[in-house]
Amino acid sequence: MLVHGRGSIAQVHYTGDEAAPEIKKLLDAVVESEDEFERWEALIARASDLEGGVTRNSSPSAIELVRNVYDCFLAKFPLFFGYWKKYADLEFSIGGTETAEMVYERGVSCIPSSVDLWANYCGFKMDTSHDNDVTRDLFERGAHFVGLDFQSHPFWEKYIEFEERIQEPTNVTKILARIFQLPVYQFHRYYEKFRPLITSRPVEELADPKLLETLNKAVEAENQGFERPPLELDRQLRGKIDHYYYDIYLRIQGEVQAVWQYENAIKRAYFHVTDLEDEDLENWRKYLDYTEKQGDFHRTSFLYERCLVACALYDEFWLRYARWMFSQGGKDEDTRVIYMRASCIFVPISRPLVRLNWARFEEKLGRIEVARDIHLAILEEVPDHVETIISLAGVDRRHEGNDAAVRTLEIYISQRNAQVGGFLAVEQARILWRCKDSPSEARQLFKDKHDKFLESKEFWLKYLEFEVCQPAPDQEEAHARVKGVHELLRAKGRFSSDVMKELSQYYMEYLMDYGGKGAADEYMTLDKEVNGYVSSKYPSPPLGNSKGQPHTSGKKRKHKAKAVQANANPLVNAQVSNEAA
Amino acid sequence: MLVHGRGSIAQVHYTGDEAAPEIKKLLDAVVESEDEFERWEALIARASDLEGGVTRNSSPSAIELVRNVYDCFLAKFPLFFGYWKKYADLEFSIGGTETAEMVYERGVSCIPSSVDLWANYCGFKMDTSHDNDVTRDLFERGAHFVGLDFQSHPFWEKYIEFEERIQEPTNVTKILARIFQLPVYQFHRYYEKFRPLITSRPVEELADPKLLETLNKAVEAENQGFERPPLELDRQLRGKIDHYYYDIYLRIQGEVQAVWQYENAIKRAYFHVTDLEDEDLENWRKYLDYTEKQGDFHRTSFLYERCLVACALYDEFWLRYARWMFSQGGKDEDTRVIYMRASCIFVPISRPLVRLNWARFEEKLGRIEVARDIHLAILEEVPDHVETIISLAGVDRRHEGNDAAVRTLEIYISQRNAQVGGFLAVEQARILWRCKDSPSEARQLFKDKHDKFLESKEFWLKYLEFEVCQPAPDQEEAHARVKGVHELLRAKGRFSSDVMKELSQYYMEYLMDYGGKGAADEYMTLDKEVNGYVSSKYPSPPLGNSKGQPHTSGKKRKHKAKAVQANANPLVNAQVSNEAA
Repeated sequence: MLVHGRGSIAQVHYTGDEAAPEIKKLLDAVVESEDEFERWEALIARASDLEGGVTRNSSPSAIELVRNVYDCFLAKFPLFFGYWKKYADLEFSIGGTETAEMVYERGVSCIPSSVDLWANYCGFKMDTSHDNDVTRDLFERGAHFVGLDFQSHPFWEKYIEFEERIQEPTNVTKILARIFQLPVYQFHRYYEKFRPLITSRPVEELADPKLLETLNKAVEAENQGFERPPLELDRQLRGKIDHYYYDIYLRIQGEVQAVWQYENAIKRAYFHVTDLEDEDLENWRKYLDYTEKQGDFHRTSFLYERCLVACALYDEFWLRYARWMFSQGGKDEDTRVIYMRASCIFVPISRPLVRLNWARFEEKLGRIEVARDIHLAILEEVPDHVETIISLAGVDRRHEGNDAAVRTLEIYISQRNAQVGGFLAVEQARILWRCKDSPSEARQLFKDKHDKFLESKEFWLKYLEFEVCQPAPDQEEAHARVKGVHELLRAKGRFSSDVMKELSQYYMEYLMDYGGKGAADEYMTLDKEVNGYVSSKYPSPPLGNSKGQPHTSGKKRKHKAKAVQANANPLVNAQVSNEAA
Repeated sequence: MLVHGRGSIAQVHYTGDEAAPEIKKLLDAVVESEDEFERWEALIARASDLEGGVTRNSSPSAIELVRNVYDCFLAKFPLFFGYWKKYADLEFSIGGTETAEMVYERGVSCIPSSVDLWANYCGFKMDTSHDNDVTRDLFERGAHFVGLDFQSHPFWEKYIEFEERIQEPTNVTKILARIFQLPVYQFHRYYEKFRPLITSRPVEELADPKLLETLNKAVEAENQGFERPPLELDRQLRGKIDHYYYDIYLRIQGEVQAVWQYENAIKRAYFHVTDLEDEDLENWRKYLDYTEKQGDFHRTSFLYERCLVACALYDEFWLRYARWMFSQGGKDEDTRVIYMRASCIFVPISRPLVRLNWARFEEKLGRIEVARDIHLAILEEVPDHVETIISLAGVDRRHEGNDAAVRTLEIYISQRNAQVGGFLAVEQARILWRCKDSPSEARQLFKDKHDKFLESKEFWLKYLEFEVCQPAPDQEEAHARVKGVHELLRAKGRFSSDVMKELSQYYMEYLMDYGGKGAADEYMTLDKEVNGYVSSKYPSPPLGNSKGQPHTSGKKRKHKAKAVQANANPLVNAQVSNEAA
């Protein structure tokens, strides 16, 4: 559903004549970098504008183009509710009511928490449908998705407007009663609208039968033994109703008060590709903390949905949403949907963290193949992502054993460059050594592969570490092994001097940590060779922060003089005499 | 020699009456923080000033004070050559020539590469000694130490002035010839002074007999078969001499040209407690690189000495100097002196790096006790320096075996707080496990000590790592062990939530890297509990940097409006009606 209408902009072509080169240019620009919002903006503007504004009378090519462009754009950025609205308007002028409605349907399915979009959709329905029940059903659907939004009043206003237009005061009363009982920003305004009705509207409108019965009983009880005129009874009853709603009003007031600080701190409630301020992010974190503590599942998930419109590009919140959903128990499917939405639409594939979590989640549910496929999908986009390859091998290791994992890694080693390969070989060795508990195989692997990875720091660090960690009853032999690796990398390794230094430093620390009587000797010799006379890696902090001068003013002058003097190049006049000679 | 006259300022007292409280205050200020140069400056100024300026007629107490102050100050900051000069002047007015001379001697022994100090000392000698040979000997000593300095001309000027004053034109000629053959800043000026003398002075002054003989032969050869008048022959000979020196002049010009870029970049050649600019440090590095490559031992060590006046507080250069000296072969004693000077005088004890290298150096030379003492000296100043304690235990381990090292560490654990103790216990475990190859003892140690270090992240990380690394034919058992440690730390550990998270993260990675089929299940459950719903540790970078707006201008207005609206606290008017009700 979420990926409805998704297509690749790369396949979009404009077959019309008008402004063809211009459109081509704009299309190419987008294809070149699909993440840049402005390029889309320009393309959409120009496409909609073709032939003086695309309508049902425009050329088929123009119509096809603008539709394709909108489809691709909204597949990539489904949260730009403003563009769903624009697309629907355009569609209305092209295909009419039905196609426009389809666009709205796609829109609310992509961003169901958008108050504005629902308000627009319902407004559109009001104007185009003659079946009030159908329209009312749509309002009710909207109420389900956005009624709770702190800023939902634009939607409710439309709803009230609708019922008023078709002259259903009863429904208006009921809606007003409904709204002020929600913790929304304008609860007070709606209470003020509703309250006078308590004296004017028929009581049946004001309370459901059950409530009425209770309140009537209460009135009777108070009047025991007295005869009251009906008008008086009615007054008393409405008094009770008023009191009943006022208590609710006070409760809502408390709820609004509680969330006010968070709601008020939301600077950008809508989606955009630009970064959010740190305070905004922190506010969402606190707001979610607070709401989770309240423990109302519906309200919490609703807040997450709102949050993930503004923060759709922050995997932090997707991961948190998934964790929270998962923690509710029996929500595996909902959790999966969250991971899917995050992975497939919002978080750029270049940040595979969410996807890897998703894969673990699927693995946990026993869907091993799905877990694998998620890895493969990532690798299609970022083939050299070491973490993903190793994680994929991990899946194999856990479910098909160590050797299977080693084989998987071998395949990728053969397909990747040495930089990546080094990391993968190291993982192979780790599995053989640590998981399969076969150091000999690991050692053989390091020996066999070392020629391949002469530039991989990771490979040699781990090779050293491997030999260092081998338990050795015979110190001499152990030392010889480690020393051998170090000499090998010094002889063959192709590293920058810094990396070479780091690797030798590792060996030198080994000498101090494991070596015997002769260690210091070997250490100092290496220290000399390795660190040579080039700058050590330990620049010193200043001693104190004295601003005083070390010399008498006389000396100071002397030094100034010297400095100035030194700026005259001694060779200039030298040149002169040179010719003189 | 270098620590001559060193005494503790804390033991200095002023027994005089004048300004006693004031002096007391200044003394206390210095004792309070000996590294602050200004405090010394103030103390010295005031002390020298007592009784209208201390002289041989001042009270004994004033004289004693000012001498003690200078001694302590110059023991701590021996490189402030300006103060040696001031001290010598003062001493001259107190004790006269002999004591003043002693101060100069101490000065040049502490900072032998100071051109100014040598110039002052020699000038002083000129004025106070009547034995010209003695004075000349001093100039020659100075020439040995600073003659090569790029800025040595103030010294050479004094030397020339001396020979002129005692009317020794022959010596003047020889000195001029000497200077311009050195790669110094003013080589050209001295050449220009020397050159005219080639035609005016007796040839014996201009060249040693051997050279004269060679040149004379050359002249004869050119005149074969011809009779020349003596005057003509003399002219020819002087022509050869001129040519001979001109060649040398050209060579020197090349040498000066080569070092000019470095010399010219030296912004502060003298010592001060304030920090050096990065460019200055980089220039010294490059200059040393260049000079070392030239391979002249004398010039290189001379440059190091100059460098370590300006950079005396940067252990980087001390370490480099030591390495270079050590690499020259047969220079153990010189290397030791460098480590000693760096450790005992210049580099603050709070940065033990140099000292630890020194200790290794002594260990290498078989002076195990000295190595130990160096460690103990550091620990007297910075008792909690973990690296030093572990390094000390390392000395014991290498020379007395694993158990001795463990015992040493045990002693320090009992004397230090748990924060430090955690690191030391970890090192004990490492030695038992890795060096003694006895995992069972290591495990026992972790078990026995875990209650002591409930706040030490290091301790628990290593405990986890230890169990993770144990080769285990039986996966179940291994997993149970690691899991046990994790549960133990979750139950008992007293960590910040971040640290707790980090530790659990380590265990979770273990699950993925070592676990079997059930791993993902345990992982996801932990992920939920550990990372909870609170912010994940992976905030996302911005996607693109689009500044575009997601909405039509109409929408934008709408959102602005909403924002404003939202700033009106809904509860304010609510309060009102509240009372109304």
